[in-house]
Amino acid sequence: MNSTMQKISIEKVKESKIDQVDFNNLAFGSVFTDHMLVCDYKNGAWETPKVVPYQPISLDPSAKIFHYGQSIFEGMKAYKDTDEKVWLFRPLDNHKRLNISAKRMSIPEIPEEFFMEGLKTLLEVEDKWIPQTEGSSMYIRPFMFASGNGFHASPANAYKFMICLAPSGAYFSGKVKVLIEEKYSRSANGGVGYAKTGGNYAGQFYPTQLAVEKGYNQVIWTDDHSHEYIEEAGAMNIFIRINDTLITGPTSDRILDGITRKSILQLAEKKGIATEVRKITVTEVVEAAKNGSLKEMFGAGTAAVVSPISAFGYRDVDYDLPELEDSYASQIKKDITDIQYNRSEDPFGWRVGL
Amino acid sequence: MNSTMQKISIEKVKESKIDQVDFNNLAFGSVFTDHMLVCDYKNGAWETPKVVPYQPISLDPSAKIFHYGQSIFEGMKAYKDTDEKVWLFRPLDNHKRLNISAKRMSIPEIPEEFFMEGLKTLLEVEDKWIPQTEGSSMYIRPFMFASGNGFHASPANAYKFMICLAPSGAYFSGKVKVLIEEKYSRSANGGVGYAKTGGNYAGQFYPTQLAVEKGYNQVIWTDDHSHEYIEEAGAMNIFIRINDTLITGPTSDRILDGITRKSILQLAEKKGIATEVRKITVTEVVEAAKNGSLKEMFGAGTAAVVSPISAFGYRDVDYDLPELEDSYASQIKKDITDIQYNRSEDPFGWRVGL
Repeated sequence: MNSTMQKISIEKVKESKIDQVDFNNLAFGSVFTDHMLVCDYKNGAWETPKVVPYQPISLDPSAKIFHYGQSIFEGMKAYKDTDEKVWLFRPLDNHKRLNISAKRMSIPEIPEEFFMEGLKTLLEVEDKWIPQTEGSSMYIRPFMFASGNGFHASPANAYKFMICLAPSGAYFSGKVKVLIEEKYSRSANGGVGYAKTGGNYAGQFYPTQLAVEKGYNQVIWTDDHSHEYIEEAGAMNIFIRINDTLITGPTSDRILDGITRKSILQLAEKKGIATEVRKITVTEVVEAAKNGSLKEMFGAGTAAVVSPISAFGYRDVDYDLPELEDSYASQIKKDITDIQYNRSEDPFGWRVGL
Repeated sequence: MNSTMQKISIEKVKESKIDQVDFNNLAFGSVFTDHMLVCDYKNGAWETPKVVPYQPISLDPSAKIFHYGQSIFEGMKAYKDTDEKVWLFRPLDNHKRLNISAKRMSIPEIPEEFFMEGLKTLLEVEDKWIPQTEGSSMYIRPFMFASGNGFHASPANAYKFMICLAPSGAYFSGKVKVLIEEKYSRSANGGVGYAKTGGNYAGQFYPTQLAVEKGYNQVIWTDDHSHEYIEEAGAMNIFIRINDTLITGPTSDRILDGITRKSILQLAEKKGIATEVRKITVTEVVEAAKNGSLKEMFGAGTAAVVSPISAFGYRDVDYDLPELEDSYASQIKKDITDIQYNRSEDPFGWRVGL
């Protein structure tokens, strides 16, 4: 990569809109800060990123993002501790995964320095916007898309890397009820399921809408061939506790390598919880629900952190999960958020100060 | 749908840029006309489309097109005959397919009147731009995407339907060499392969780049489970002639229901060419290449019309196809383009005058 970074320039807004925001009633990802980071890829190189006022993007109608779906993103959070110090959680893993997605989608990879310095500079400018209220954090959305023009179905010659910030509350409120899906699928072997690319999300909306109409919140995807293996939920990886063992499926070219997922595996191991990373069949989960050995199911992802599942539906039958006093989900959520908000030691070296 | 259409308004450019265009050297989809059609979906309804000067689109950085891939499109052409009369080819089929794609991607369907009247009005305004030069046509790109804002992974509440026009020459020049792909896949059972959505194209770019580096022009996709069944090429459906029978795979939820594909089947039948719509295995094609019964392979699609394949690669072996004097590909291409350009009778009722 022949991209060399100069000092990041900062163009500030004349007047902040922070006073219009009610930080005690933040929704998820719907209020944006005063500034954003923009970095253009042109003539085979990334230009130096710039912090500019949050503003509309102007694109030619033939820009390939509108036609051929070259788009990728990451989801991250920044946390403010009681001393007003700001922390990131495993940010280099997000950078790595962004570039893994980039490669699969024929988007040029972005150097670590551009990503990390861009992120830090933007967060420093927006420090006042980072919420300190319980359960809130600064949701960070790095994204890249094809801005180059033309109707030829081939990779674009120009791209934008951007970061926007949204002070946010919880993604899901309360427990979620999920439907194990057997007709629609999320991804193919040899496809793009492991990339965090727009099309993977758009493809889930319709089946999810159908599930919502039946009273569920999310879909649990199964493999597209046999529909017998549990893969992941829409925006989350899935964990299943049978007796006292915590099980999650292996990552593959169909499944996103979730950062929360792998953190939970490490954390559980350290806590002495038995973990298994292996294929899980729907039959096994249904059997476990019937014989009472199924104790918990929960989703794991940056947006939702740990999202307990109250029930799952399969072939027109709903299976309720027990209400546990001291669930793995609540223990793990507490341990991870304690690390994220600097309320505990971080034996893993996950926390990165701004 | 509670969308009611008023009269389409037309805002003309002050000065046309048509004089800057060399109509004898048109590339594919890289020169755009003076105007475009824009139609907004807001508050649960499509507003009346407008013809406006071709201009950049302005979108919030959180617009869902950048993050969640809700985008669909169609490819069509307008043809000018020697009397300067303009013709479309099966335009209602494009409208139908756009709405099939829309439903799968949770995008609101657009009424036929909005699509057809919008298209006709725009083409009338741009009549001078429709090329009459041999082999050229007006490439028409209707597309729809999520313009609504927010980082929640759910369908947007606002969309844009647009049509842009690009006077264009041939998509491929010359014969293409294809690679039968066994590692990467285009689509999953129960996925979005049958929808003309951006992500289906972006996902093909990287495997296609790898094929191009090995000397091929395109990839022939196989099923994601066994890689034994031939599905389609990137921007084309595939036809295979064994002896005197023309074979193409059945459409499915993984394969685009190509308008050129189904036109070829009807046309071949009328010409007395035996056709078969059935699954084709790679083994069968390789055997046919070895024993000499494989006579032709060609791609079919709006952009390329009929695109003869000169050779295919499979497991590091290249199989050349014979050069035929009066190939089905050339016969069919002539018959279809004669209908499209009003050079022959149209017994099928495919041609629609503007």
